[in-house]
Amino acid sequence: MKSISEQEYLSALAVLEHAKKSQVHLNMARGKPSQAQIELANPMLETLRDGSDFLDSDGNDVRNYGLLEGISECRELMGQVLGVSKDNVIIYGNSSLHVMYEQISRSMTHGVLGSVPWSKLDKVKWLCPVPGYDRHFSILEFFGIEMINVPMNEFGPDMDLIEELIQDESVKGIWCVPQYSNPTGITYSNEVVRRFARLDPKAKDFRIYWDNAYAVHHLHRDKQDHLLNIFDEALKVGNEDIVYMFASTSKVSFPGAGIAALAASTPNLSQIKKQMGVSTIGYDKINQLRHVRFFHDLDGLKRHIHRLSDIMLPKFELVERVFDERLSGLDGVCWTKPNGGYFISLNVPGKAKQVIERCRECGVVLTPAGATYPYHRDPDNANIRIAPTYPDLKELAEAAEVLCAAIIVEMH
Amino acid sequence: MKSISEQEYLSALAVLEHAKKSQVHLNMARGKPSQAQIELANPMLETLRDGSDFLDSDGNDVRNYGLLEGISECRELMGQVLGVSKDNVIIYGNSSLHVMYEQISRSMTHGVLGSVPWSKLDKVKWLCPVPGYDRHFSILEFFGIEMINVPMNEFGPDMDLIEELIQDESVKGIWCVPQYSNPTGITYSNEVVRRFARLDPKAKDFRIYWDNAYAVHHLHRDKQDHLLNIFDEALKVGNEDIVYMFASTSKVSFPGAGIAALAASTPNLSQIKKQMGVSTIGYDKINQLRHVRFFHDLDGLKRHIHRLSDIMLPKFELVERVFDERLSGLDGVCWTKPNGGYFISLNVPGKAKQVIERCRECGVVLTPAGATYPYHRDPDNANIRIAPTYPDLKELAEAAEVLCAAIIVEMH
Repeated sequence: MKSISEQEYLSALAVLEHAKKSQVHLNMARGKPSQAQIELANPMLETLRDGSDFLDSDGNDVRNYGLLEGISECRELMGQVLGVSKDNVIIYGNSSLHVMYEQISRSMTHGVLGSVPWSKLDKVKWLCPVPGYDRHFSILEFFGIEMINVPMNEFGPDMDLIEELIQDESVKGIWCVPQYSNPTGITYSNEVVRRFARLDPKAKDFRIYWDNAYAVHHLHRDKQDHLLNIFDEALKVGNEDIVYMFASTSKVSFPGAGIAALAASTPNLSQIKKQMGVSTIGYDKINQLRHVRFFHDLDGLKRHIHRLSDIMLPKFELVERVFDERLSGLDGVCWTKPNGGYFISLNVPGKAKQVIERCRECGVVLTPAGATYPYHRDPDNANIRIAPTYPDLKELAEAAEVLCAAIIVEMH
Repeated sequence: MKSISEQEYLSALAVLEHAKKSQVHLNMARGKPSQAQIELANPMLETLRDGSDFLDSDGNDVRNYGLLEGISECRELMGQVLGVSKDNVIIYGNSSLHVMYEQISRSMTHGVLGSVPWSKLDKVKWLCPVPGYDRHFSILEFFGIEMINVPMNEFGPDMDLIEELIQDESVKGIWCVPQYSNPTGITYSNEVVRRFARLDPKAKDFRIYWDNAYAVHHLHRDKQDHLLNIFDEALKVGNEDIVYMFASTSKVSFPGAGIAALAASTPNLSQIKKQMGVSTIGYDKINQLRHVRFFHDLDGLKRHIHRLSDIMLPKFELVERVFDERLSGLDGVCWTKPNGGYFISLNVPGKAKQVIERCRECGVVLTPAGATYPYHRDPDNANIRIAPTYPDLKELAEAAEVLCAAIIVEMH
């Protein structure tokens, strides 16, 4: 362990003082693509214009009503992303979060494949690998579902604990961001995926919410994580009803105007389609076709990701460099160096709240303390989620220096 | 009353026989815009292209995350459509049906402005002006809400009956399509709107679902219905929390890729936005800006409607001409001649089911019998909803002749 020298402390104090005086406005709070990333998707808008061919591969005019489950070629594309047949895919609107919300909402009011609606039960519980995604937790909180923390390790969530907890029939689901996890950036190991695929919960209406939000979001062309296909693994043991898979192009095409997809087994999908049909005639198929005409297939999508990572990688590297330089060896302080996804997860045990508050005073906005935990309660007051994509390199360097200075002052 | 001559009967039989032999495939079932209508919106796709300015009037990049309630200028546009300030408007995705579904779903799980969640009540009831829109009824059926028929007359729903029924605290809402009603085509009278605005239901969580689906959907440039503004009327008596208003551009721009809006009072909106924020970061703002750049304002929207009605009006007139010629004077048979909207409502007392079945045998698909009533139960087996927009004039003439022939044969 390294101790903070007086010089380091004074220098950190000066950094904070300077930031406070110069009224910087820097934001590392939300996983928001930068302007430069978004610009790369602009040519997509050229694919469907006045005079274009608006027929999908089955001859349907994408501008008119119909096709509840989405157009065939878009289901194929998102099937490739999720590693399933297009027959197991539904395409929705612009938000996979909304798809997950709706699945939980309908489970509350109508149950899952014939089970008792969850709103009729005394207690519904959910497993939450932590740290995790704040918006996942907000959905559960909204529906009054009790959240149980499950610690993450370098291979994924603690599977021993999960296998034990699902013996409780009131446990109905678990959140997973299996690749480049939000925020820790790790990818579940093959062993973890296999154990998920074989889960045998007491509740037959238990579902794994496999939010593969960063399925193709590699930061490197060479160093990429590989996630085992849970659907294939579940099929092998006849357990494919246990998982809903989600993905979107929000961080590939346009954050506000991408497409979201759900993949599931045939029995799950047939219930979902029946329920969907009550609420809508279908989602925006022009946007679906636009995506396919632009990306063509998974390879096209991956080529686009490479271009995105050329912009993103230097930002991750910069933050890591500043952390290495300023924080190495500080007692208990550690951070992730992910191969993909959108976040760096920083731990400052016992000090997260104070550090975030110090940064706020200096004009640097970070994700609120506790956000990566259910009920905003980080038991160790340790985790800070860093989103390096939106600021430019200069702003990011400044923000990272302020953050490190805040940590040094706090730990002095 | 006219009696059907033997010659008319034989000629009708021949029409059916010929249709059956020639294997026509005609569809007057769904309110679907025609190809020609949709083409008119194509230039909208030219408004946002690679190299366009993507900033909304507040300087937000519409391609990125954010702006839960939609972009300012689009709220303004849809506010004009609904006759309210933009501050009372939220813009959603492509389906107003989905917005209504979600309002009811959230009322089930969370109540309305602090009321008991409806799913916790023994009984929830809803008033359904009949004939009405089948998809409205499907939502209620999905949530197990008991539907009570309220007859429509030429001024709107029977207000005496409504004022009586809302003394029951378990009555929580009513569907209204107040202008060019689906399917009867009538527009609520000023008196009816005023009585709606002053409703004083026992249930404080009772809401009028004012689905102004055809707010600007006139068929004529001169002969247009005028709907009194319920929100203004409700404001006058401090009752503005009672109504949610809905509209969309599905039948103005693209049926699968329009924009939907909800308007409501400030207390209603603040609950709704809080709930929305749990399920999504926001809807497709590129498409919102596209709509504003194309239509500009309400006048632009109206000019577009005129061009649409040039295509639609001849179809309505054709069907009405065939009905006049074939069905005039037949006992109890009557139909509407709406000034706007999407439907002609035809009544053939005691025979709707049989007529629809005869048509089906001849390759002419109509909306299923009973569809315009809750639980698909038309007590008089009378109502047939005709959607004349999708087929071309030749097909439409053929379909109308088959339909009239089926009626004549059935009534002979």
